[in-house]
Amino acid sequence: MSEWFETLDGLYTMAWDQLEQGVADSSHPARHPSLATISQSGWPEARMVAIRCADRAAHVLDAHTDIFSDKIASLKAHPRVAFHFWIEELRLQIRVQASVEILTGSDVAHLWAKVPQPSRQSYGITPAPGVPIPDALAYVKDPDQVSFAVLRCAIEHIDLVHLGQVHRRARFTKARDWIGEWLSP
Amino acid sequence: MSEWFETLDGLYTMAWDQLEQGVADSSHPARHPSLATISQSGWPEARMVAIRCADRAAHVLDAHTDIFSDKIASLKAHPRVAFHFWIEELRLQIRVQASVEILTGSDVAHLWAKVPQPSRQSYGITPAPGVPIPDALAYVKDPDQVSFAVLRCAIEHIDLVHLGQVHRRARFTKARDWIGEWLSP
Repeated sequence: MSEWFETLDGLYTMAWDQLEQGVADSSHPARHPSLATISQSGWPEARMVAIRCADRAAHVLDAHTDIFSDKIASLKAHPRVAFHFWIEELRLQIRVQASVEILTGSDVAHLWAKVPQPSRQSYGITPAPGVPIPDALAYVKDPDQVSFAVLRCAIEHIDLVHLGQVHRRARFTKARDWIGEWLSP
Repeated sequence: MSEWFETLDGLYTMAWDQLEQGVADSSHPARHPSLATISQSGWPEARMVAIRCADRAAHVLDAHTDIFSDKIASLKAHPRVAFHFWIEELRLQIRVQASVEILTGSDVAHLWAKVPQPSRQSYGITPAPGVPIPDALAYVKDPDQVSFAVLRCAIEHIDLVHLGQVHRRARFTKARDWIGEWLSP
């Protein structure tokens, strides 16, 4: 019996298991990856987001964001993202690249309906996120679905690294119909 | 007496304290940020790196990498990075954007001399990192300074978010001579 990290299938299955656990459990390390985008002016950017859906069959990840946040302007200019997850307990790095569709309004009303009241505080802030303010707390939160956007991320590339006693690295791409291959780490 | 996260100076000082602790202590959460770059083909990328120097006075961060890794090709095309740190214990997100210079050879021989033998395993792998291989372990490590590169990152922008009971966000930029300002979070 091989360990999960010794086979391409084992690695891939474990990565998706982690992504699904991140959606289910807000304290799981896969819940809050780093999300990298490219700004309008061509700078890389990275910040924490929360994963809200991981669809293994469709190869899709969802994150939620304020439509007025910086990252929306970036994604309108460059509709591509990279997610970076690190699962310390497994010594597993998960890197995901995806094309992004920004969903708002009636398309996501059913998702907004499921956002718990405390989490709604993240959508609808005045002035908009990133605007200079005279004092740290000179802003008002007024939760509103108008500010709610879903980033639907269609995965094109998954790169997995297991940093065990030896290092193993594999990639899985849409272009190869998700058939994995080992890479030099 | 205010809390550290209540003033611009307090936030900024704490962020640099964390970066310095990351350099000093390999188990500190600031040791291993996510590093975002832009690939030659215009995709955002993100992966874990280790911070090896944090120079508060010069506003510089160093990371080390294999000169043959994917990120070097990306940085030659787009010499800009974003670092993303999350210090769970402090509920502090540190985002750093920097211009990158790639240093190799005699310029970094004095730094290579200080790299511990086990860490040298990360530099000098055949085939090069990211090359497909027939089996997970079909690679050879042969530590060599020829493969050793220092990413010297001249910081242009620092964005700090404290996710406490209330959220506070501030930015500090080279363009404003590091005088901070509060932002709507």
